[in-house]
Amino acid sequence: MYKKNKQKLFENIVYGRNSVLELLKAGKRTVNKLIVAKTARGTTISEIINLAKQKCIAVHTTPPEKLDKFSENSQGIAAEVSPIEYTKLTDLIAKAKQFPKSLLVILDGIEDPHNLGAIIRNCVAFGANGVIIPKWRAVGVNETVSKASAGAIEHISISKVANVNQTINLLKKNNFWIAGVENGGQLLEVVNLIFPLAVIIGSESYGIHSLTKKNCDFLISIPQVNTISSLNASCASAVVLYEAAKKRR
Amino acid sequence: MYKKNKQKLFENIVYGRNSVLELLKAGKRTVNKLIVAKTARGTTISEIINLAKQKCIAVHTTPPEKLDKFSENSQGIAAEVSPIEYTKLTDLIAKAKQFPKSLLVILDGIEDPHNLGAIIRNCVAFGANGVIIPKWRAVGVNETVSKASAGAIEHISISKVANVNQTINLLKKNNFWIAGVENGGQLLEVVNLIFPLAVIIGSESYGIHSLTKKNCDFLISIPQVNTISSLNASCASAVVLYEAAKKRR
Repeated sequence: MYKKNKQKLFENIVYGRNSVLELLKAGKRTVNKLIVAKTARGTTISEIINLAKQKCIAVHTTPPEKLDKFSENSQGIAAEVSPIEYTKLTDLIAKAKQFPKSLLVILDGIEDPHNLGAIIRNCVAFGANGVIIPKWRAVGVNETVSKASAGAIEHISISKVANVNQTINLLKKNNFWIAGVENGGQLLEVVNLIFPLAVIIGSESYGIHSLTKKNCDFLISIPQVNTISSLNASCASAVVLYEAAKKRR
Repeated sequence: MYKKNKQKLFENIVYGRNSVLELLKAGKRTVNKLIVAKTARGTTISEIINLAKQKCIAVHTTPPEKLDKFSENSQGIAAEVSPIEYTKLTDLIAKAKQFPKSLLVILDGIEDPHNLGAIIRNCVAFGANGVIIPKWRAVGVNETVSKASAGAIEHISISKVANVNQTINLLKKNNFWIAGVENGGQLLEVVNLIFPLAVIIGSESYGIHSLTKKNCDFLISIPQVNTISSLNASCASAVVLYEAAKKRR
């Protein structure tokens, strides 16, 4: 199975203890089987195996080297799953609008899967209702993103869109305010964030595209003591979402 | 030079446009020479070359493939430098104490160089006066950290210590309060942070070691809407340092 069908297996595999645990807990994707290294031990592994048994998922044990072939960071566990299903944009918006103070995050070209994973983790932690990523010139949700998100991708709706600016226009029609995170904007701590809001985080290399920036209702800037360099995209998203969650409590 | 001495060159090389620019601006380390890909263009490249000329640093041009051999992310530029010099702990403390509301960050076992780089970037952005990392079971400052910090490592004192708990005791004797970032602590937004403070961030896998946790004066917890998973270490540090900087203004 492994050798014949390596590519397919790798495409639809989730590895890492937290990622597999959250995958099973969320129950959103179909898990075909669980692959556990013979040497894997610990409370999380036991919890995963118990959950799998409850859900009648086949558990295969394997020499640890086999798992290492697919990922250096498997932590002795992997799950073969149905691919991640992106949510239709209109469904994501409709679902978000059920909350009076809905919060969406638009990523305008994040290229590093570790950053995308960490941002999705922040979105779940601070209660965002959905994440929107572009189809092109950006990383999609793959197994590295899943691992870096520590399983958070299982707990939030993600939409992939062909055109970020058309998406912004649709959000505006649905009464969302659009806020770009960018130097030179209003200071994060004083800006009002208590209304339906979509926050845009720019790419690691170029920030927010200029047309997209013009399309924003306002810009938010994170006050820094030193402006030698800007924050990493995932750290910037953490600070903005923390402050938004605080103001909304 | 490249082929004969690849290991040495790689050890003491800084690559990436922002990293090299900040290296030259800071002027803390001796730059032996600058290596620029023949094809490299742009305002940052011009700024770097002008700065190098002002500082009488030799600029060598090279085919881009040569740089690619050493790093996939060189962005067409590299600098051969003296190794990063760690600051003696006593010097770092003495320097930090010159500020009435000094702020230090202790990293209790960060293993991922991208996380370490991002955390150092946060420390510089939010005005921390120094970073303390352990000698063992943790990543040191290497070229990946330098790149991930976008040059921020050139603008902050970093100490490497043999024993985190002895360091904490020394800091306590110097009137620092020790705060661990950990679930179950006092809520970040209400806790007082306006005194000489050392913030401890735990490792990605295990958090703060139990003995170190006991040694803290208090614990800080970042309020989350969803506690499905904790934040990534660099994102947690960003939020805590943002709030500390805000309270100290």
